[in-house]
Amino acid sequence: MTNPHLARKAAENLKNLRSKKPLIHNITNFVVMNYTANALLACGASPVMAHAHEEVEEMVSFAGALVLNIGTLTPYWIESMIKAGKKANALNVPIILDPVGSGATKLRTDSAKRLIDELSITVVRGNASEVLSLAQKDSKTKGVDSLHSVDDAADAAIYLAKELDTTLAITGAVDLVTDGERIHRISNGHELMGCITGTGCTATALIGAFLAVDTDPVEATSTSLAFFGLAGEQAASKTKTPGSFQIALLDALFSIEKKQLEDGAKISVS
Amino acid sequence: MTNPHLARKAAENLKNLRSKKPLIHNITNFVVMNYTANALLACGASPVMAHAHEEVEEMVSFAGALVLNIGTLTPYWIESMIKAGKKANALNVPIILDPVGSGATKLRTDSAKRLIDELSITVVRGNASEVLSLAQKDSKTKGVDSLHSVDDAADAAIYLAKELDTTLAITGAVDLVTDGERIHRISNGHELMGCITGTGCTATALIGAFLAVDTDPVEATSTSLAFFGLAGEQAASKTKTPGSFQIALLDALFSIEKKQLEDGAKISVS
Amino acid sequence: MTNPHLARKAAENLKNLRSKKPLIHNITNFVVMNYTANALLACGASPVMAHAHEEVEEMVSFAGALVLNIGTLTPYWIESMIKAGKKANALNVPIILDPVGSGATKLRTDSAKRLIDELSITVVRGNASEVLSLAQKDSKTKGVDSLHSVDDAADAAIYLAKELDTTLAITGAVDLVTDGERIHRISNGHELMGCITGTGCTATALIGAFLAVDTDPVEATSTSLAFFGLAGEQAASKTKTPGSFQIALLDALFSIEKKQLEDGAKISVS
Repeated sequence: MTNPHLARKAAENLKNLRSKKPLIHNITNFVVMNYTANALLACGASPVMAHAHEEVEEMVSFAGALVLNIGTLTPYWIESMIKAGKKANALNVPIILDPVGSGATKLRTDSAKRLIDELSITVVRGNASEVLSLAQKDSKTKGVDSLHSVDDAADAAIYLAKELDTTLAITGAVDLVTDGERIHRISNGHELMGCITGTGCTATALIGAFLAVDTDPVEATSTSLAFFGLAGEQAASKTKTPGSFQIALLDALFSIEKKQLEDGAKISVS
Repeated sequence: MTNPHLARKAAENLKNLRSKKPLIHNITNFVVMNYTANALLACGASPVMAHAHEEVEEMVSFAGALVLNIGTLTPYWIESMIKAGKKANALNVPIILDPVGSGATKLRTDSAKRLIDELSITVVRGNASEVLSLAQKDSKTKGVDSLHSVDDAADAAIYLAKELDTTLAITGAVDLVTDGERIHRISNGHELMGCITGTGCTATALIGAFLAVDTDPVEATSTSLAFFGLAGEQAASKTKTPGSFQIALLDALFSIEKKQLEDGAKISVS
Repeated sequence: MTNPHLARKAAENLKNLRSKKPLIHNITNFVVMNYTANALLACGASPVMAHAHEEVEEMVSFAGALVLNIGTLTPYWIESMIKAGKKANALNVPIILDPVGSGATKLRTDSAKRLIDELSITVVRGNASEVLSLAQKDSKTKGVDSLHSVDDAADAAIYLAKELDTTLAITGAVDLVTDGERIHRISNGHELMGCITGTGCTATALIGAFLAVDTDPVEATSTSLAFFGLAGEQAASKTKTPGSFQIALLDALFSIEKKQLEDGAKISVS
């Protein structure tokens, strides 16, 4: 079921990440800054958090990827993201967007859509309701409020990826990744990942890290989600409670060997 | 000594929290955002952190409780709290206030008093000096600077609860909860809870979670403090150092069964 | 090799820190606020984070040291640091500066230099490139871009400490502390400390704590770095992965006895 090419690619990406240690520029929310910085360090990347209008363009020029996350956003932070994103686009630095809470409040939905309109975003990662909230008013994906699972969302996601001209990652029990043509499903992971804060944000940051070493957005995204999901499985084999799970997850991101990832990645292509 | 009704109520509240998973809207300080989000998740609630003026009213309309915490405050954040609080009052969403550092600086004291003046606050939780700093200039509770223990503060707290028309929770070695009529004392807890940052803020957030499932402010507060204190006791039975204690505390919030809580809650009524 | 006076001084400083529990006022970055607060608590200090212009002067007046850290800075935060710093200078409260990312962006370099120009800073701690970026345009330390190790940087640091009239701590595999006259080298530590976020920021905060109990800046800095490095060694004896290392490090800061520190401190004088 697992695609052998993608399993090998996952291992290769992890190896390159650990040897190249790319700088990942994060403009992200207050809740997860510490944890995502530690997750990026654990897997071999070099995180930096910077949001001042005066420095985001300079900072992103050193980066292998730009991670934009709209949790705890205010208008100042959206401007930071626009500034950094335009510079990233000019320099061909890939951008990944996490539309945290899009669909829940007007500010979040409008901000996520504005970022997609004004920037060329390489990958968008969210849960089904967040991602599908990004559809335009007259989109074929309207009416998605009734979609509750990744499977229900697959058809809508394919249309939406084409409409937005980006790669979409809808994460859940099974993750779906599509650029509107290719569809990957990743079945790594563990339900305890939903019991700690910022797991989705961490997934987004790790996709950023993989984008810095893999120019194929669909493959970079699928392989990073398989890696993160496998780390969740390993952590859950150590503990069944969320405090210690959170720590074991960081340990696993650091410890997983590329052979383990090649053997454990569960990515299917349809 | 423990009140049997309150022990049962604690277990019932925990059960309802885990089944209903209420959204708890937090406008809180930067230091504790991650930890309180994880604590709320561990006990079954659904945390959200949002402070933008553009979205706080919308966000709080989905919430079962609003948690206001004035640590690391600036004027922008106080306005966020006022906006969210007014909407919460209009919708009958309970508000809990943590006056972090009130009494230490004029900004903190004035901000805490302004929130109490302009909003209808269901519960205020702090240590003795923070809570008693909220007394009005001509209050009978003046002169409380000499009060150093929860016991010393009991009489002052009763007057102050009536004066402010709210429920007060003064936490310490023994916690005191009063609405000016009823007085509950909670003797769960462990001294290691004072060796990690944000324990008080976490207690406040958990009171918010219990308020979302229990309309009696005094009982919601007492039972949540008993639950949190019991989690501290369980964590301290695993480790005696603060790093691992912090993690074991999250684990305990997730693991405690309602029967354990009913048996372990130490809430007395006087 | 280890200087016996400094080993005893380290133990004495730790003892005084734990008995006096000085308030340490931090104006620091969002990523590390929680971790540094926990580290300060673990070693016996009382941390407070406060950055509002309305309260920083009042807050610093209660403090034993002021910690300024320019990670995730914006202009508002720099003004907070200037305000708090001027008050600290007026009250003879020691200031320690962590010029996070100085040399990487113009905003960071300019801000670090402005803080040094406008304030009397007791200690500056950073890695070699951060510290050496603080040299003036016509400095003898120019051309330091080729310096990659603490050893390479020693001569430059001595000149720079005199030029800036402060104590410099350049941390790395071996830490270097100099006021332009005395030179201390601290060889405690473990490479896993580089695998978690905020280790440098935590070192800075702990130097702040030691400055609150030791009026000799060079000795306060050396002894705190030996203490922190020893904690890293103890943590690394428990675990080899970064998630659990981060927790074990807090545990060690709490557990190390003064006799252990006296025996384990590796501070040489040259």
